[in-house]
Amino acid sequence: MTGTEVLTGRIADQNGPWLSQQLLTLGVDVAHITICGDRPADLTAQLRFLADQGVDLVVTSGGLGPTADDLTVATIAEFCHRELLLDPELEEHIAGIIRRHRPHTPDLDAGPTRIGIRKQAQVPTGATALPPTGTAPGVVIPAVAGDRPVPTIVVLPGPPAELQAMWPSAITSPAVAEVLTRADDLQQGTVRAYGLHEAQLAETLRRAEAEIADLDRLEITTCLRHGELDMVTRFASGDADVYRRLLDVLAEHHGPQIFSTDGSTIDDQLIDALDGRSIATAESCTGGLVAARLTARPGSSAYVTGGVVSYSNDAKSDLIDVPAEMIAAHGAVSEQVAAAMAEGARRRLEADVAVSTTGIAGPDGGTETKPVGTVCFGVAIAGRPTYTLTRRFPGDRERVRTLTTTAALHLVVAQLERR
Amino acid sequence: MTGTEVLTGRIADQNGPWLSQQLLTLGVDVAHITICGDRPADLTAQLRFLADQGVDLVVTSGGLGPTADDLTVATIAEFCHRELLLDPELEEHIAGIIRRHRPHTPDLDAGPTRIGIRKQAQVPTGATALPPTGTAPGVVIPAVAGDRPVPTIVVLPGPPAELQAMWPSAITSPAVAEVLTRADDLQQGTVRAYGLHEAQLAETLRRAEAEIADLDRLEITTCLRHGELDMVTRFASGDADVYRRLLDVLAEHHGPQIFSTDGSTIDDQLIDALDGRSIATAESCTGGLVAARLTARPGSSAYVTGGVVSYSNDAKSDLIDVPAEMIAAHGAVSEQVAAAMAEGARRRLEADVAVSTTGIAGPDGGTETKPVGTVCFGVAIAGRPTYTLTRRFPGDRERVRTLTTTAALHLVVAQLERR
Repeated sequence: MTGTEVLTGRIADQNGPWLSQQLLTLGVDVAHITICGDRPADLTAQLRFLADQGVDLVVTSGGLGPTADDLTVATIAEFCHRELLLDPELEEHIAGIIRRHRPHTPDLDAGPTRIGIRKQAQVPTGATALPPTGTAPGVVIPAVAGDRPVPTIVVLPGPPAELQAMWPSAITSPAVAEVLTRADDLQQGTVRAYGLHEAQLAETLRRAEAEIADLDRLEITTCLRHGELDMVTRFASGDADVYRRLLDVLAEHHGPQIFSTDGSTIDDQLIDALDGRSIATAESCTGGLVAARLTARPGSSAYVTGGVVSYSNDAKSDLIDVPAEMIAAHGAVSEQVAAAMAEGARRRLEADVAVSTTGIAGPDGGTETKPVGTVCFGVAIAGRPTYTLTRRFPGDRERVRTLTTTAALHLVVAQLERR
Repeated sequence: MTGTEVLTGRIADQNGPWLSQQLLTLGVDVAHITICGDRPADLTAQLRFLADQGVDLVVTSGGLGPTADDLTVATIAEFCHRELLLDPELEEHIAGIIRRHRPHTPDLDAGPTRIGIRKQAQVPTGATALPPTGTAPGVVIPAVAGDRPVPTIVVLPGPPAELQAMWPSAITSPAVAEVLTRADDLQQGTVRAYGLHEAQLAETLRRAEAEIADLDRLEITTCLRHGELDMVTRFASGDADVYRRLLDVLAEHHGPQIFSTDGSTIDDQLIDALDGRSIATAESCTGGLVAARLTARPGSSAYVTGGVVSYSNDAKSDLIDVPAEMIAAHGAVSEQVAAAMAEGARRRLEADVAVSTTGIAGPDGGTETKPVGTVCFGVAIAGRPTYTLTRRFPGDRERVRTLTTTAALHLVVAQLERR
């Protein structure tokens, strides 16, 4: 992973997590992710480190652009003691792409643009070029055995869309395919819980150690995200039975909190729970995040009729019929208003189900009885009394908004599944 | 950075970027970010690597929880050849936190919960404990000179909110403060452009090399994000004049595309451009993302009146008065409908300004004349004819939605600044 823009925190690294997940599904155990800037010495040091750890495969992303600060291929070629050679076919291929995308580019045949193209068309000897999915080609450099062995190195572009589009040709290249034949036969299971503390799960896992022999053969990791607690377990196929016994222990202690053991997310479950019904949103403190999450999924126009971000009190009254007197009497952050918002959105957006959020995301606006983090929810379902709930979330504005969004989805699923 | 959950891509690493930015503002040059799983041998290998690179400071995050897979402190203590000792005061402090947060916890005085607390209260000899901001304390371990020197190591918890809350006490601890006295005097300048290709900037930078002496004294990195191109330059104070000359060359070639040279984002500029006016949104393909971005900022309720996610055609007609005949005649994705959405939202949400998006985010729904990625925008401003525009964005559903959101903000600013 190279790129000062990632190192310095200006952009979040999307490629490391994506590549890790892809490699895991191929049975490759990812031991290290490293990020460095555009300084060749730092990249060389990281390559040396990874090679010395005895890894079989290194995947790099970034540093393949036409700008002079992008030095990944040259640095890796030097690390592998391979010469860089201009590939004239590749040069013409890249020039052709630029000609099609920016037909009026000056200097396409000479000058700075051509220098940039020639830079991108350099391939280390013995390496395989991967056709560009943007303008930058990738490279696969085969492993070399010896005293200080060099692993197989896959060099991919930094933009996530380009990297992901190039991945299939990377993993089918002969040098990578050879590594993959040696991959482990590992399975992975995911348990997702909501409303469970990490410390509670830790206690249960300690108890399970006493009850289940061979529990230490499972590689268990736990992770809190947006208020959900995920437990991911990796194990060899022969240990599937140990994992099943662990699932039994977890179900016994935390049955009500566990909402998924098959990898499905709450977003997936919401669609199942809707079962053909339509949904609408009325948001105040989440400001559109619930609607954005519902519509993130392809095909969501089939069941999301729409939403209202009723940030001002007038918007609550005018668009979704929340009585101004109700707001005056109970405050905008109240279960009464949350209920009226959900009911108004359901009616005005002609949906079967509607969910509402109204709360104090902070940093200002908190009071003694309704401190920052206080959020009221409403769930309106056709033919049922509207359900309301008040919760209090910790953290800053962003965290309160994120936790509220996740909570809204869990609430809708719980209410839809209630008979 | 530890945590199999980050390594395997299940959660994105927020701490690396955040810590990098903090360290940069303190003048500390970040050379490497490394991520490993919860295997002690991998963490030890990374510590060895970083120490051998001669870094002055290592900051770790994660692996401080009560679960048995969290082994950071024990592993680092072993790496530093320091014994782990139970800190009884810290133990009682953690127990007190759990008692307040979960008063009905069983086994608080003995059993698994107490084992977890004792694990978290272990401090390496000679190290300084940092008070917990969640339940896990942090640790600062002073550097040791010698043949194989060990840098100062700061051990922080993984949850971003806890880590960020602990940061002030980490940087004021004596061992870290000593490192910071040796930090560089570096400045950083940011140029943000919209509608500029990375290759065009690369060409201009190559030309600038011929025109500006000492240009190589600037450390320039470029980064594409959500359709914006950021160029960040770091330089010693003595080279400020070289940077100013570079800004002149950029302004000459790309003046219309450069929208910020003072670090401000388009979100910042939107607020300035509103200049006290209020804003509303009407979104179709972005499904709430524009409203969510506008309301992400504290205090946004002062100028955001609200928004409508008019996903269905009925929602467009009923909530913001888009004539059904107009949708039938021109299609929901048309500049006519975009204009009507913006005007309807402005009127119904009683705002001075409104922006609308309606497009085909994909993967389905594209036609020959309106392929996936086609988006129509409308900007309605009181007392002016409504402005409309059609654009076509590349990429998948998520990318189209993200690029559309950024484009909407740029459009509003451009229209507000037009005299």
